[in-house]
Amino acid sequence: MDKEPLQGLFGKQLKAINLGLEGMAEGIEEQNAEVTRVNWSPPAEILPNMVFTKSGASIDQANDEACQRIIQSGAKLVGMGIAKDVIPGMREDMILHAGPPITWDRMCGPTRGAIMGALVYEGIANDEAEAEKIAASGDLTFEPCHHHQTVGPMAGIVSPSMPVFILENPVHNVQAYATQNEGLGKVLRYGAMGEEVYQRLRWMEEVLYPTLARAIESMPEGIDIKGIISQALYMGDECHNRNRAGTSLFLRAIAPALIRTQTDSEDTAKVFEFISNNDHFFLNLSMAAGKACLLPAENIPGSTIVTVMARNGTDFGIRISSQPDQWFTAQAGEVEGLYLPGFSEADANRDIGDSTVTETAGYGGFAMAAAPAITQFVGGSPEMALRITREMYEITHTEHPDFKIPAMDFRGTPLGIDIRRVMETGILPRINTGIAHKKPGIGMVGAGILRAPHACFEDAFNTFQKNYCA
Amino acid sequence: MDKEPLQGLFGKQLKAINLGLEGMAEGIEEQNAEVTRVNWSPPAEILPNMVFTKSGASIDQANDEACQRIIQSGAKLVGMGIAKDVIPGMREDMILHAGPPITWDRMCGPTRGAIMGALVYEGIANDEAEAEKIAASGDLTFEPCHHHQTVGPMAGIVSPSMPVFILENPVHNVQAYATQNEGLGKVLRYGAMGEEVYQRLRWMEEVLYPTLARAIESMPEGIDIKGIISQALYMGDECHNRNRAGTSLFLRAIAPALIRTQTDSEDTAKVFEFISNNDHFFLNLSMAAGKACLLPAENIPGSTIVTVMARNGTDFGIRISSQPDQWFTAQAGEVEGLYLPGFSEADANRDIGDSTVTETAGYGGFAMAAAPAITQFVGGSPEMALRITREMYEITHTEHPDFKIPAMDFRGTPLGIDIRRVMETGILPRINTGIAHKKPGIGMVGAGILRAPHACFEDAFNTFQKNYCA
Repeated sequence: MDKEPLQGLFGKQLKAINLGLEGMAEGIEEQNAEVTRVNWSPPAEILPNMVFTKSGASIDQANDEACQRIIQSGAKLVGMGIAKDVIPGMREDMILHAGPPITWDRMCGPTRGAIMGALVYEGIANDEAEAEKIAASGDLTFEPCHHHQTVGPMAGIVSPSMPVFILENPVHNVQAYATQNEGLGKVLRYGAMGEEVYQRLRWMEEVLYPTLARAIESMPEGIDIKGIISQALYMGDECHNRNRAGTSLFLRAIAPALIRTQTDSEDTAKVFEFISNNDHFFLNLSMAAGKACLLPAENIPGSTIVTVMARNGTDFGIRISSQPDQWFTAQAGEVEGLYLPGFSEADANRDIGDSTVTETAGYGGFAMAAAPAITQFVGGSPEMALRITREMYEITHTEHPDFKIPAMDFRGTPLGIDIRRVMETGILPRINTGIAHKKPGIGMVGAGILRAPHACFEDAFNTFQKNYCA
Repeated sequence: MDKEPLQGLFGKQLKAINLGLEGMAEGIEEQNAEVTRVNWSPPAEILPNMVFTKSGASIDQANDEACQRIIQSGAKLVGMGIAKDVIPGMREDMILHAGPPITWDRMCGPTRGAIMGALVYEGIANDEAEAEKIAASGDLTFEPCHHHQTVGPMAGIVSPSMPVFILENPVHNVQAYATQNEGLGKVLRYGAMGEEVYQRLRWMEEVLYPTLARAIESMPEGIDIKGIISQALYMGDECHNRNRAGTSLFLRAIAPALIRTQTDSEDTAKVFEFISNNDHFFLNLSMAAGKACLLPAENIPGSTIVTVMARNGTDFGIRISSQPDQWFTAQAGEVEGLYLPGFSEADANRDIGDSTVTETAGYGGFAMAAAPAITQFVGGSPEMALRITREMYEITHTEHPDFKIPAMDFRGTPLGIDIRRVMETGILPRINTGIAHKKPGIGMVGAGILRAPHACFEDAFNTFQKNYCA
């Protein structure tokens, strides 16, 4: 209110009439010019063959179905297990990674680093040099987490011995999986290697995992992770890069069972300390909950809703409901953000990780208005956080009735990215993310904000049009 | 933005120029009229004798000193003890209550109920009828919590055997005290009586207290309650009637010590469950922290800052820094709020409790903008929550640099109610609060919002003027 108004011609104060997109009106208002809003959206006639499929089915109805499946889904933490034992299709010679499929030669530094580290942790390689040779040999199979109902933050590496959380969607009887979060800094998922990293992973396998697993096993109802996400959105989290409330509520939920099932009180105390010292602990649970809710929305004929959005640090890939097995990819973006002391943009790898499952499921960056304090971690301002959420309503099919934003008068979060609306508006999904060093072995260098790349949405749109509307 | 603009004469759109008070501009803007703000405040000449005391000292400087003492204060939970052993001046025949001093004959229903219940809990009376006789006999001494560095929510009853938290302000070497929070509903502090209430109080004395006390004792640094308040304001609490984040962060902070000092794991698990089932558990800690920070601001000659604001359900009382022993009282207000099923305004007691220590110390109702979700508990809207905080800047001396509101671009909360500004602006402090049933023995009926009464500020102002400026 105390800014100089934007000046028009002849020094008169600029006034604007805004048709349709809220985001544009806000851009002008930030300059303190007066904007009159006209409620307008592009006439359906512009894309006549994108309203019904060639078989006459309504695309909107298909999208309703996809979104309703996401909304009705539950996500409960019902158990834990070792990756090779519980993840469908997982094998001893397989390493899962974040994002769309990629071969070793095209992998980015942090993904390579995390794979090499995982091979040392597994005892498959004696050191990083040997690990690199094995990884490049072609003897191992690399597959996307998303091909195995799994999601992994940053490099997203899941190797056979790693413990994973099992999330169940009881409404649709599907499961999703994610590893335990290691913390920030010099950690495997950011591509870090070294004894410090392996020791932590071993403690997580030998102490953290059995302690948590025993507690979860003793809880007949499991832990309602979707419910914690709902609550955390009331408590300043958006459950992607701010998880302080989620982590706190998770600890509250599991604490009595942890104590009742303890075998060694010092181990139990250390488990509390480990989780309490890592405000990102809840991230992996939040991600797996998102995956558990999105899985039933896959494979609805005629739906243009995005059900997968993920990056491997080289490519950004999406999948849409009606073509669940096809990846549409583009080069992964560059992140604008805040850097840890001693690092800068020059160190940053391109956008990486499956954590965009949160935005795909209607929270994360899409719910940034709920988390103004996150801007101290990823940059931007509380005002910008509000604007990002408002903008995402332009490209989503509906609002999530279980995920509400108090500061927006308890409005539901934007849910269900519709590739038609992305193409119509030119608005690309907003993401917030951690930033990994581009070289293998170093780790986290910062956190920031960016948009998904245009080309994969265009590709998905054209393919959908050809397959369903031609 | 989509409301009809307020119409002026001849159907022209009303435009307004606002001098000074932000609260008025917003009232007009809500009607969608254009407001131009002029930064103006009443010339000091209006109250020439309220700028300097008769000895020539600057009142603003005295108020700076009072606020700086509050700001620089710390508040750490350093231990627990039994009221009669640790609260200064507490005696076996003494009962402490919330608010300004009051005699039995003038006490409201919930205060009487809580005293009667406390006498049964203490074993001084065999039943409520006997308790009422003893209470009315004149054999007991009733004194305000505030006379004993103590604060109590609602009826605020502290009887000799009750365990209390000991909060230390290490900067000024003072202590403050508060009981453990019982939860909501049928609880003593809302005036409830009966076996359910006493059993809970006994468990709190026999299990909760020793378990927490052992844990706190084992933490050489104590627990930084002021730090938790800072964090909780980033997490949707205002630390008066919303304490979900505070309670979660408190559990996180104490959990490892609770486990390391446990004697019986089932007791420890029950302690976790009791605290986790009561999102208001942190309230009493938040209040005692406020008191620990406000105590050093008392007794600064020439200061017009409010250092105590408290209600006993009959009277609302304030004390100001320069006259720390004098209460200025007025009739306690009626609360507008939301009622539990089966109750209505007709059941409500007048405003009650020491919990306004939070507003006095710069959070609680004054930080409602940080807690939009609280409006589901106390009524109003997220927009109103923002407006309440903005309005409170009009009557406070400064902003608290340690208590920030992310949604307001990390602005510090309004701190230090200046009775001069209350009188100049006519704006009375806003409070949010629980509502007790007006009859003894029933308990909580709702929660709501109100303003402090005018008369006690006027009285304080006139007395200050007479003593310091005449």
